Amino acid sequence: MKIHFDDTNLRAAMIGDVHGLKSAEIKAGQPEALKALAGFQALVEEGRYGFPHQPFQTATIQEIERFGAQVRGSFDTVCLAGIGGSALGAWALDCGLRGPHPVQGAFTPTHPRLVILDNVDPALTLAALESMNPKKTLVVVIAKSGATAETVGAFLIVRDWLGPQGAKRIVAVTSEGRGDLKVLATREGYPTFHVPENVGGRFSVLSPVGLVPAALIGVNIRKLCKGAAGMTRLAWLPDLARNPALRSALMLYLSWTRKNKPIQVAFPYSNRLWGTAFWFRQLWAESLGKAKTRQGETVHAGQTPVAALGTTDQHSQVQLYMEGPNDKVHTFWTVARPASPGRIPRQKLGLEGFDYLAGQSLAKLLDVEQRSTAAALAANHRPNCAFTLDRLDEEHLGAFLQLLEFQTAFLGEMLDINAFDQEGVELGKKFTFGLMGRKGFESYREEYQRYETKRAQVRG
Amino acid sequence: MKIHFDDTNLRAAMIGDVHGLKSAEIKAGQPEALKALAGFQALVEEGRYGFPHQPFQTATIQEIERFGAQVRGSFDTVCLAGIGGSALGAWALDCGLRGPHPVQGAFTPTHPRLVILDNVDPALTLAALESMNPKKTLVVVIAKSGATAETVGAFLIVRDWLGPQGAKRIVAVTSEGRGDLKVLATREGYPTFHVPENVGGRFSVLSPVGLVPAALIGVNIRKLCKGAAGMTRLAWLPDLARNPALRSALMLYLSWTRKNKPIQVAFPYSNRLWGTAFWFRQLWAESLGKAKTRQGETVHAGQTPVAALGTTDQHSQVQLYMEGPNDKVHTFWTVARPASPGRIPRQKLGLEGFDYLAGQSLAKLLDVEQRSTAAALAANHRPNCAFTLDRLDEEHLGAFLQLLEFQTAFLGEMLDINAFDQEGVELGKKFTFGLMGRKGFESYREEYQRYETKRAQVRG
Repeated sequence: MKIHFDDTNLRAAMIGDVHGLKSAEIKAGQPEALKALAGFQALVEEGRYGFPHQPFQTATIQEIERFGAQVRGSFDTVCLAGIGGSALGAWALDCGLRGPHPVQGAFTPTHPRLVILDNVDPALTLAALESMNPKKTLVVVIAKSGATAETVGAFLIVRDWLGPQGAKRIVAVTSEGRGDLKVLATREGYPTFHVPENVGGRFSVLSPVGLVPAALIGVNIRKLCKGAAGMTRLAWLPDLARNPALRSALMLYLSWTRKNKPIQVAFPYSNRLWGTAFWFRQLWAESLGKAKTRQGETVHAGQTPVAALGTTDQHSQVQLYMEGPNDKVHTFWTVARPASPGRIPRQKLGLEGFDYLAGQSLAKLLDVEQRSTAAALAANHRPNCAFTLDRLDEEHLGAFLQLLEFQTAFLGEMLDINAFDQEGVELGKKFTFGLMGRKGFESYREEYQRYETKRAQVRG
Repeated sequence: MKIHFDDTNLRAAMIGDVHGLKSAEIKAGQPEALKALAGFQALVEEGRYGFPHQPFQTATIQEIERFGAQVRGSFDTVCLAGIGGSALGAWALDCGLRGPHPVQGAFTPTHPRLVILDNVDPALTLAALESMNPKKTLVVVIAKSGATAETVGAFLIVRDWLGPQGAKRIVAVTSEGRGDLKVLATREGYPTFHVPENVGGRFSVLSPVGLVPAALIGVNIRKLCKGAAGMTRLAWLPDLARNPALRSALMLYLSWTRKNKPIQVAFPYSNRLWGTAFWFRQLWAESLGKAKTRQGETVHAGQTPVAALGTTDQHSQVQLYMEGPNDKVHTFWTVARPASPGRIPRQKLGLEGFDYLAGQSLAKLLDVEQRSTAAALAANHRPNCAFTLDRLDEEHLGAFLQLLEFQTAFLGEMLDINAFDQEGVELGKKFTFGLMGRKGFESYREEYQRYETKRAQVRG
């Protein structure tokens, strides 16, 4: 397993002093990085945060593998009802290891597809139901709290659609000791896997939240966890030269806070890493977007993550990245050794705009375009860096996800914020519960109604 | 056709003076908006920009319809080779009118699917080829210049894969008077449709660039253009109360420039509008991300577009939007009358976290969550506004795309930038040509090599 982080184009020597980091600035930040590592390590040792332990949960991994082997062949579709951290990890794994939709090819009991219901848009849910056969679908319902409104709404419809014998086709992933989903799962006898209390949604891809759906669609979760375990060992090294999670955390922290870059572009040059970019968006936004420090000081911290896809977004976003405000750090994600080159035919057609490509490969073009874009950004003083995965397989993807989780946790320490809560979404949830008539939320319904009255007045 | 723009939550009366617009500020901006309309109108009358005319090109629309009727039934897959403006419009239409992948259902000659090759990642291209049958695939190759490297690379592979009789299964969309694709299409006899020279890629969805693939997958392009024509008439009205394109342009311009909001979140509460959000990302970023004004003054203008999906991204991005830096304007896109409600079963399960939803609908939950999120953002002084499409059908989607194009053109006028070029991407392209060995680009190869030498020195 080999993942390389290249920060050359974040440096002043490449992109100038205004937007680039001088060696002295980097050196001055190193004690902060080491302190962040030690601080996070103490919290993990206290048992506060559990994601670093997930790749080492051999008994859980084996239990999931056994379950997968037992049900294999009885379904051609895995239907996941879940949202946010309960869905994005599974998408990252499906897309990363089996390829992007809609070109995964025909689905069969030996090559099942993953259909994710992570919204309550009836246009999604009803179309999904029409596209699935209830006798050939295994439903995985995932909610740590056991009562996420969107997941419950979609699940109630899917449960009904499965019919009276449906309970046999449902698997639950939820908390062990609480929540209505756990009650229902016990009552109706769903096989159930548990999310450790100290593993939050966006850090749960290597817990049963990500591993159960992954195993069901045929991902080798043992290799996935092996890669993540290897990265975990690196991520605890108090050594910036050997620890890519800590080194990238430091460099991104310095670029963001010292050079005022409120936006990070996660820029995979790989359609397979597109799902991972959306998983990362949640990890970065929800962990580091915080009103207050842990001391209670108001800071409104947060760097807005943007997902861009190379080469595609060179024809959509790169004009802005090159000439717009210099307010971004661009993080390329590349794969050193693609599975196939995608050979372009050797035949020449006598067309100058075509023939230089004859006999070359798509893989080379993809690589050249990424390097050309990085060079052009650097020429315009735009900070950029790159993670390179040696290959894109279970081991490397598991390692990369774990790297990004550690990186985020380290950033949280450097910013002195709690990277593991999400209090900011509570008010919207309470308005929703109030408006949907859930008991105990009547006062939020009234507050919402006062807001609507005011809006009507303002509109005049 | 009815599209409503609600800007109440951009106003100081709702979100406070620091982030909201006072009535006096809005009133002061009105002459700027009217001047922008007049300025853009003059350019269109001069023939500089052609997108406003596209919905009225009856002969072209009929020609495409005839072609579609003629080939219908001979393919189950439309494979589009194109990138950026040559792909995003077709995706927006496919997703918006036929539903999101991967739940569109089985594809057949009467219900063909659209496979878009808008990248040179072999993992995309090779998987796509494996998933398609060359005897049942119609290839549409789209490149205005006729020589876009990514499109040519992918197309050469697809052309080879089609086999010796392949020319019969290829349709081209390109410029009439130039380019290597035009030469090849003429030589090999592909049916060919032309992109008007004064219609740029990101403004071309209602030209043959978007209409040809749309017609081939069964979209009613006449209705699409009817909606867009209706919007065009509104968009030329010098009346902020009746012209939603001009009104939204003004309000977004004022929020962005007067209240310092460098980011716009395009936030559809609709899986079907997800493709449109990516189409919009290009329109906004590439049109308005510019180093200089038309007078040559360096400004580095640009507002970074972010695509977010409701409700899904409430569980991913909204924490940041609520508590992070107040640097965004949030633009919701909603559909007033969904095609189906998505009824949740009436049966109660004796679970407090489930039962309040019984007998309600997903459509209601989706609507309530959007309004709750808007209210919560407003309570935190975060600017937000909403476009509401009465329904999501050809007419409304055509109108909405045209609205967004006009809005963008008006913004370009207010910012005094050229919204129709993209000079910033040239350097990256030239490095690519140099590194791929295209004749005439040797000096860029050398420049790239000097950059790599410097990088090696900096890395030490």
